[in-house]
Amino acid sequence: MKANGKDIRALWFEKNSIRFIDQRKLPYSLEFYVARNVQDCAFAIKDMVVRGAPAIGAAAVYGMVLGCKNVERTAEILRGTRPTAYDLFYAIDFMMQKIRKGEDSLQSAEFYVDDIVDRCRRIGENGEPLIKEGMKILTHCNAGALATVDYGTALAPFRMAHDKGKKFFVYVDETRPRCQGLLTDWELEQEGISHAVIADNAAGYYMRNGEIDMVITGADRIASNGDFANKIGTYEKAVLAKENGIPFYVAAPVSTFDNSIKNGDEIVVEERGREELAMVNGKTIYPSWTKIRNPAFDVTPKKYVTGYITESGVVKK
Amino acid sequence: MKANGKDIRALWFEKNSIRFIDQRKLPYSLEFYVARNVQDCAFAIKDMVVRGAPAIGAAAVYGMVLGCKNVERTAEILRGTRPTAYDLFYAIDFMMQKIRKGEDSLQSAEFYVDDIVDRCRRIGENGEPLIKEGMKILTHCNAGALATVDYGTALAPFRMAHDKGKKFFVYVDETRPRCQGLLTDWELEQEGISHAVIADNAAGYYMRNGEIDMVITGADRIASNGDFANKIGTYEKAVLAKENGIPFYVAAPVSTFDNSIKNGDEIVVEERGREELAMVNGKTIYPSWTKIRNPAFDVTPKKYVTGYITESGVVKK
Repeated sequence: MKANGKDIRALWFEKNSIRFIDQRKLPYSLEFYVARNVQDCAFAIKDMVVRGAPAIGAAAVYGMVLGCKNVERTAEILRGTRPTAYDLFYAIDFMMQKIRKGEDSLQSAEFYVDDIVDRCRRIGENGEPLIKEGMKILTHCNAGALATVDYGTALAPFRMAHDKGKKFFVYVDETRPRCQGLLTDWELEQEGISHAVIADNAAGYYMRNGEIDMVITGADRIASNGDFANKIGTYEKAVLAKENGIPFYVAAPVSTFDNSIKNGDEIVVEERGREELAMVNGKTIYPSWTKIRNPAFDVTPKKYVTGYITESGVVKK
Repeated sequence: MKANGKDIRALWFEKNSIRFIDQRKLPYSLEFYVARNVQDCAFAIKDMVVRGAPAIGAAAVYGMVLGCKNVERTAEILRGTRPTAYDLFYAIDFMMQKIRKGEDSLQSAEFYVDDIVDRCRRIGENGEPLIKEGMKILTHCNAGALATVDYGTALAPFRMAHDKGKKFFVYVDETRPRCQGLLTDWELEQEGISHAVIADNAAGYYMRNGEIDMVITGADRIASNGDFANKIGTYEKAVLAKENGIPFYVAAPVSTFDNSIKNGDEIVVEERGREELAMVNGKTIYPSWTKIRNPAFDVTPKKYVTGYITESGVVKK
């Protein structure tokens, strides 16, 4: 990914410390956070300096490098940061095994992180041919490099098409309640990819007017039948795409497919707090008495999906 | 409408002055603005103390009362406030005719305003039977008393059903970019009607989960074939309602039907400025460099509409 013209990652290991793009400050300013010890790394995960399951996994493997002299204690500290993050536990276990086997901790961590990045790069390569010259494409939320160390999932094909010199335009849903569209806006701006942010309400308008040729989103979890969970509003955009005859693609690594669940009905949707709607960029925008309901994600049935863009290829239905 | 437990209107004439609920302060606080002369009234219209076409018309007829000693000059001042507001010009012309005929200006103004309110009340009465005990109903934007002096259009059936003691629940779309859902939230809170604000992205989620039984919105303009223009996002909710087999009603006075246009394709959609997305409640929430596109409303084809709730009855397709 690019940041102020330089090629960097959302986080990396350098001079016995972890360097993070401080995502708490984005999109408003580009600042870095340096973790010099396990406590710093735990703080970065807990306080959302770093966000997105794959990027959190990367932070954890680097954290294990910083604390490799006391593996058990380090694992315990890191596990306590985000107790529901599956990638975090997987990453910690991966490193414990490597260190116990006597393998080099930094080398093992870099292997883990490079594998994440490589899968995203291949998602980009596989999705790139879908983007034709002059296309207008909608994306929802931020399935970008910030969440995946580099390239992103939904944003990876955009990066690859842009590198090949293709011209296209990206409509970015604002993505209320958390406005993660602003992170996508930041990433595309840094890459020099033409785009504009729109209200989530405007996506249907542009679809109906023939101004959107394709939709690409990420996915949090894909059931074995192809139903998938993603940021709230994804289902709305998928229904609108189908109604208007627009292809709808889901970009995600193969690990997102969860064969333990048959279909989307088995996915339980979490309701989150009022502050996600009531506050933006730390500023309160709702009256104190406003009641809200806030489902964090939704489930889109497979019938709305044209295909799945993975590191192994594009799986059409 | 109710405000702090009292029955009031969005504006009214009292002691040779116009009293307005100051809509610039809503939903955050309930304050009043008093216009004692034509200039005050012009300021109220221009500075959006009062909003919504019917309410602006009401402000104009009362403004003509305040300036009835110099009709031509008063009309000129009021016409200059919102040069694109059709109701404003209609209201001014109505008053000029009455005053020229020697009719009492205040009596004429009250006749005009009562007619608006009466039509909304009848929209409420006609729509009320559609609301069944225990229903969950979605509304978009604010088609309420604030915009129409009293009762509202989309909100009028809710008021009537509540008065009859029916229990139901209203999902209120936040309605980005301007968050007019917060005005609807304020009105329903004042009436004691159970409701919650949701992200516009969440409406589809609740529809798919069977938690929305009906949708009622207002309309800015209805073409002779039944296609209608309304706040951006209305089209999205109409498509989602149809996909999920949920009845979708449009509540509007007969005057909203524009027989001069055949269908929705003839309606030109205005693009508005970036500050509508970038600022909320006077606070900047977007980075300075974010590019936006902001269509103000959209057109929903008649095929998504179950029926039109008017003062003359419910017109089913």
